[in-house]
Amino acid sequence: MPLTPEQQAEIDEARATPRQTLRAVSEGMERHLYVAHPVLDHGLLRVIDYMGDDSAIVQAARVSYGRGTKAVSNDEGLIRYLMRHWHSTPFEMCEVKFHVKLPVFVARQWIRHRTANVNEYSARYSILDREFYIPAPEQLAAQSTVNNQGRGAVLSGEEAQRVLDILREDAMRSYDHYEGMLSQEGQQGLARELARMNLPANIYTQWYWKTDLHNLFHFLRLRADAHAQYEIRVYAEAMCRIVADWVPLAYAAFEDYRLGGVSLSGKAVEVLKRRLAGETVTQETSGMSKGEWREFEGVWG
Amino acid sequence: MPLTPEQQAEIDEARATPRQTLRAVSEGMERHLYVAHPVLDHGLLRVIDYMGDDSAIVQAARVSYGRGTKAVSNDEGLIRYLMRHWHSTPFEMCEVKFHVKLPVFVARQWIRHRTANVNEYSARYSILDREFYIPAPEQLAAQSTVNNQGRGAVLSGEEAQRVLDILREDAMRSYDHYEGMLSQEGQQGLARELARMNLPANIYTQWYWKTDLHNLFHFLRLRADAHAQYEIRVYAEAMCRIVADWVPLAYAAFEDYRLGGVSLSGKAVEVLKRRLAGETVTQETSGMSKGEWREFEGVWG
Amino acid sequence: MPLTPEQQAEIDEARATPRQTLRAVSEGMERHLYVAHPVLDHGLLRVIDYMGDDSAIVQAARVSYGRGTKAVSNDEGLIRYLMRHWHSTPFEMCEVKFHVKLPVFVARQWIRHRTANVNEYSARYSILDREFYIPAPEQLAAQSTVNNQGRGAVLSGEEAQRVLDILREDAMRSYDHYEGMLSQEGQQGLARELARMNLPANIYTQWYWKTDLHNLFHFLRLRADAHAQYEIRVYAEAMCRIVADWVPLAYAAFEDYRLGGVSLSGKAVEVLKRRLAGETVTQETSGMSKGEWREFEGVWG
Amino acid sequence: MPLTPEQQAEIDEARATPRQTLRAVSEGMERHLYVAHPVLDHGLLRVIDYMGDDSAIVQAARVSYGRGTKAVSNDEGLIRYLMRHWHSTPFEMCEVKFHVKLPVFVARQWIRHRTANVNEYSARYSILDREFYIPAPEQLAAQSTVNNQGRGAVLSGEEAQRVLDILREDAMRSYDHYEGMLSQEGQQGLARELARMNLPANIYTQWYWKTDLHNLFHFLRLRADAHAQYEIRVYAEAMCRIVADWVPLAYAAFEDYRLGGVSLSGKAVEVLKRRLAGETVTQETSGMSKGEWREFEGVWG
Repeated sequence: MPLTPEQQAEIDEARATPRQTLRAVSEGMERHLYVAHPVLDHGLLRVIDYMGDDSAIVQAARVSYGRGTKAVSNDEGLIRYLMRHWHSTPFEMCEVKFHVKLPVFVARQWIRHRTANVNEYSARYSILDREFYIPAPEQLAAQSTVNNQGRGAVLSGEEAQRVLDILREDAMRSYDHYEGMLSQEGQQGLARELARMNLPANIYTQWYWKTDLHNLFHFLRLRADAHAQYEIRVYAEAMCRIVADWVPLAYAAFEDYRLGGVSLSGKAVEVLKRRLAGETVTQETSGMSKGEWREFEGVWG
Repeated sequence: MPLTPEQQAEIDEARATPRQTLRAVSEGMERHLYVAHPVLDHGLLRVIDYMGDDSAIVQAARVSYGRGTKAVSNDEGLIRYLMRHWHSTPFEMCEVKFHVKLPVFVARQWIRHRTANVNEYSARYSILDREFYIPAPEQLAAQSTVNNQGRGAVLSGEEAQRVLDILREDAMRSYDHYEGMLSQEGQQGLARELARMNLPANIYTQWYWKTDLHNLFHFLRLRADAHAQYEIRVYAEAMCRIVADWVPLAYAAFEDYRLGGVSLSGKAVEVLKRRLAGETVTQETSGMSKGEWREFEGVWG
Repeated sequence: MPLTPEQQAEIDEARATPRQTLRAVSEGMERHLYVAHPVLDHGLLRVIDYMGDDSAIVQAARVSYGRGTKAVSNDEGLIRYLMRHWHSTPFEMCEVKFHVKLPVFVARQWIRHRTANVNEYSARYSILDREFYIPAPEQLAAQSTVNNQGRGAVLSGEEAQRVLDILREDAMRSYDHYEGMLSQEGQQGLARELARMNLPANIYTQWYWKTDLHNLFHFLRLRADAHAQYEIRVYAEAMCRIVADWVPLAYAAFEDYRLGGVSLSGKAVEVLKRRLAGETVTQETSGMSKGEWREFEGVWG
Repeated sequence: MPLTPEQQAEIDEARATPRQTLRAVSEGMERHLYVAHPVLDHGLLRVIDYMGDDSAIVQAARVSYGRGTKAVSNDEGLIRYLMRHWHSTPFEMCEVKFHVKLPVFVARQWIRHRTANVNEYSARYSILDREFYIPAPEQLAAQSTVNNQGRGAVLSGEEAQRVLDILREDAMRSYDHYEGMLSQEGQQGLARELARMNLPANIYTQWYWKTDLHNLFHFLRLRADAHAQYEIRVYAEAMCRIVADWVPLAYAAFEDYRLGGVSLSGKAVEVLKRRLAGETVTQETSGMSKGEWREFEGVWG
C-alpha cells in the first residue's frame, strides 16, 4: 500500500501535535495512532482513535463488584478471572476506531459482525479508485478437496499464470468500462450508483470501523482463526498485534482463553476422562460422529 | 425471475398442506407465504414465515399499560397512538422472515441495517449462478447534476446501447472466467473463496432476512423513500404491499406518520407559524441555510 | 401462581380454537402455547408465539451453504455441526415470545440480555398487584463464605423465621403505604410514577419477552448454569424444558456442546495433554493461578 | 450528593495529572472529566471518558462521501445536513462513558435503551449503601387526571407530609432490616442476593454507562422531553449541558432538528397546507381523531 506523499504528510502532521488530556492513555496504543499498517497488496489498517486501557477494564469491574473486588490481588488476575468466566461487560468499556482499506469481498464478510459502527466510502456518491486485490502467487490456492470452504495446494505453472492474467485483465477492463460509462465527455455519463455495478469484488473500498473490545475479541476469535479465509485473517492478525500493545493484560488473557483455548462437548469431556483413567476410546465407543471424532483427534491425538 | 419448474413445485407443495396452529394467524399474510414476488429482472421476494398480526401489537401494548389501556376505544386508535408517540416496543413483537434474491450491490446497502438476522448464500462454500442484473432501458439514468447521490435524465440512443452492451458483456465474460478458474478439468481449479472475487457487483445473491416489524418499518421508511436508489426501492415497495396485507392497521399508521410524514426543525416550525400569522418569510429571514430553505420550499411552497 | 378463573378461561379459549396456517409448525411447541407454567411462588412462564422449528434451522443453513450442504446426511448431523462450529445465524432464524411474571430483582438481572424485545407492565401507567416473592424455607440460604456472589447453608430455626417475617411484613406494609399514597379518597393521591418507588424488589412485574433461538441459548447457558441465582435459574430451567419440546434436535446439540460442555484455556489444554502422557501436574507446574487450578480440578479431579 | 473527602481526593488526583495524547481532544469535554455533577438528592453524573469531537463526525462523513463532501463549505453545514437527513452513522463515531448514581426506579427505565454498555454495581456481590431518593416537596405531585402516565398539581399540607414520612420511614426501616438480615453477628446472615429483595426502588444504585453519540441523542430526545418523568429528565438535562460543551456543532443541530423539532403526519401536513391557503380547518374536517387534533392544536394553535 504505497501511501501518497499527501497522505503521509497528513499522518505525519497528526502525529506531530500531541495534546493534553485527562483521559486514560495507553502508551502502547499512542505509538500506533494514525500509522498505516499495510495489509495485502493495497490494503491498510490504521488506528484513528481509542478509549480506555487495561485499567479501564479493571475500573469498570470494580464498579460492578464493589468492595468485594479489592480482594483480588492485582489487575492481571482480575482480568483473567473476567475472561475465564465470560464476564464480558468490563471489556465493552474499551472502544477502538480503525480506518481500513480492504477488498469488497473481504468487506462483505467483515460486515456480518453487526455490533460495530461503520462509515464506508460510498460508490453511490463518489468514484472508486483503480485499485484491485490480486493474490500473491503463494496465495493462489486450489479448492480444498476435503473442506467445502477451504483451500488446498497452491496453484502452479500455467494454471497460476492464467488465473493471475484473468484477474488482472478483468479488473483493468471493468475499471476502464466503469470510467468510460461515467465519463461526461461527449455523453451524459451514467449515474455513479449504476456504474459501480460493473466492478468486481476484488476492488478496494475503505471504511471507518468502530467497536468495543469485547466485540473486537469476538471478531478476532473467528477471523484470526486458522480456518478463516486468508484475506480477512491478515487484517485480524494485524489487529491482534495492535491490541496486544493497547491492552496487554486483556490481550494475553484473550490469547490464553480464546485464541488458544478449546471448547469441549459433554461427550468429549467424558472421553477425556475415560482416557485419563487409562481406557482406550475409539470413535465407535465415543458416542461421537465420525466428523466430531476427526476434529477431536485433531486436538488430542 | 423465471422460477424453475422444480422451484415452483416446491412452492406449490408448501402451499398445498395447511396445518393447524393455535398461534395468531394473519389471513392476509397466509396468502403471501412462499409466493415468489418478482423484483427487477431476476430477483425475488418471498415470505418464509411470520409471527403476530395487528392484534399482537395491541396485546403487547396492553401488557405494558395494563388496565389503563382499556380506555382506548379500539385497536386502530391504539396502534395510531403508539406510532404517533414513537412507542416502538409493541411493534417489535411481530417478526417476519423473507427469502430475497438480489444483486450484490443492493445487498451491500441492505446489510447496513444491522438489527436483523441474515443467512446469505456463501460463495466461499458454493458456486454462484450465472445471473446478473441488467437495468431496463428506462432505468439507465445519467448522473444527477444537482444531487451527488442521485440520478438525472434517462440515457438514450448510442450511449444507452453502449452501457447495456458493456454491462452484459463484462458480466458474461467475468462469469466465463469464474467458471474457467474453478474448473477441475485438466487443472487443479482455483478455490471458490478466491474465484468469486472476479464477479461484478450486479451478480445476484440470495439470503434469508428476518427482522421485527419496528425495524422493518425503519428499513422501509429509508428504502421506500423517493431518494432511495431505485434498485433497492423496488424491494422495499414490494415489502410495503406485503406488510399492508399482513398488519393493515399498523401499516396504515406507518403510512400516515412515517412514509407520508414530515419532520420539521425548530426553525421550520417558527417559519410556518409566522406564515400562518400572515407574514411573508424569505430564506434570508428564515434563519435557514440555502439548502434547508430549498428543501423546506419543496414541501411547503 | 393461582390463575384467576378469568385468566384460565382466556387461556382455554385461546387453546380451543386452532386455525389453519401454511407456516412451519412444531407439534411439541403447540402443546405449550398459552399454558401457564408456574415458577416460584407467584411467577409464571407462558409461550405466546413462536416462529420456526428444527427444519427452519436446517433450511436456513442450506441457503447459506447451497448445494454443498446436501452432502450432510441428515438434519441432526447438520444441526450438531452448526452448533459445534459456532455457526449461529441459522439458529437466529427461530424466534419465540414468552409471557413472564417475575420478581423485579430477577427482571433487573434478566434485562441485561440486550438482544431481545420487551414490553413490560408499566407502574408509571398502571397500579401493580399485591404479589411478592417470599422464598420457600429451603431457599433461605446464608451468604456463601467462599463465593462473594453465592449462597451457603440454608438458614434454620429462629433466624429463618425472622427473615421470613421481615420479608412478609415489609412487603405488606410497603404495599399498604403504596395504596394509601395512591388513594384519592379524601386527598389528591400521589402520582403512580412516584408511589411505585416505595415498593421493594421482590414485588412481581410481568412482561412479554421475545428473542431468537441463538440468543435464547446464550441466555440459557448463563442462567440455567449452576452458578446462576436460583430465582432466575428456575425460569431458565422451565424454558429449557419448553425448548426441548420445540426444537428437539437443536436443544440436544445445545445440551451437549454448551450446557454440558467445558471451555479449556490454552494452559489447560497443555496440562491435560501432559496428564494424558502420564505426567503428574501440580498447580505449581501448571502455569495456572490457584483460582484457575481449583476450577480446573473441579472438573478434572 | 455530598462527595466523601476520599472521593473528592480521587477526582482531584485524576484531574491533576494531564497526559499527552495524539487523539482528538475536545477542550469543552476535558473540563467535565471526572467532575461529579449532582443530580437529585444523592445522585451524580460524571464523564469518565470520551472519544471524538465535532471534527470526528465530519471526518467520518468525509470517508463516506469521499471527494464529494469537499463541496460543503464548512463543518457546521455538513453536520446540520447529516442530522437533517438522518445520516446517523457519522454521529456513531463519537463515544462517551458516564458514571451515574441514580435511584433504581430510574435505572429500570434507563436500561430499556439497549444500545449501550453497562457495568452496574452488583447487590448480589456487594452491599448497597443507605441512600434513598426522597422527592423535594415541589416534586411531590398528584396523579394527573388527564394523562395516565403524568403528574398533576403538587401535593400540599398534610398529604405531602404524610407521603414524605412514609417514604423516609419505609426506606430507613427496610434498610435496617436489610442490614439486620445480612448481619453475621450471632447468626449466619442471609445471602446478599436474597437480602437485597427487601430494598425499595428509591434506593440508589450506580453504573458505568457507555454509548455512542447517535444513541445518546436518541436517549436525550426521549428523556429530556417534557413528557419524560422528572427523575430521569434531570439526568438527561445534565447530559445535554455536557454534550453541548463536548460537540457544540452536533448538539446545536440536535437541538434544532430533534429536541425543538416536530413530526407531522401526512394528515397534519395537509391541514397545515389548507390553513396556509386560508382555509379554516376543524377537527371534524381534519381527518384526525380527537386525541391527535388536541396534540396538533397544542403545537399550532
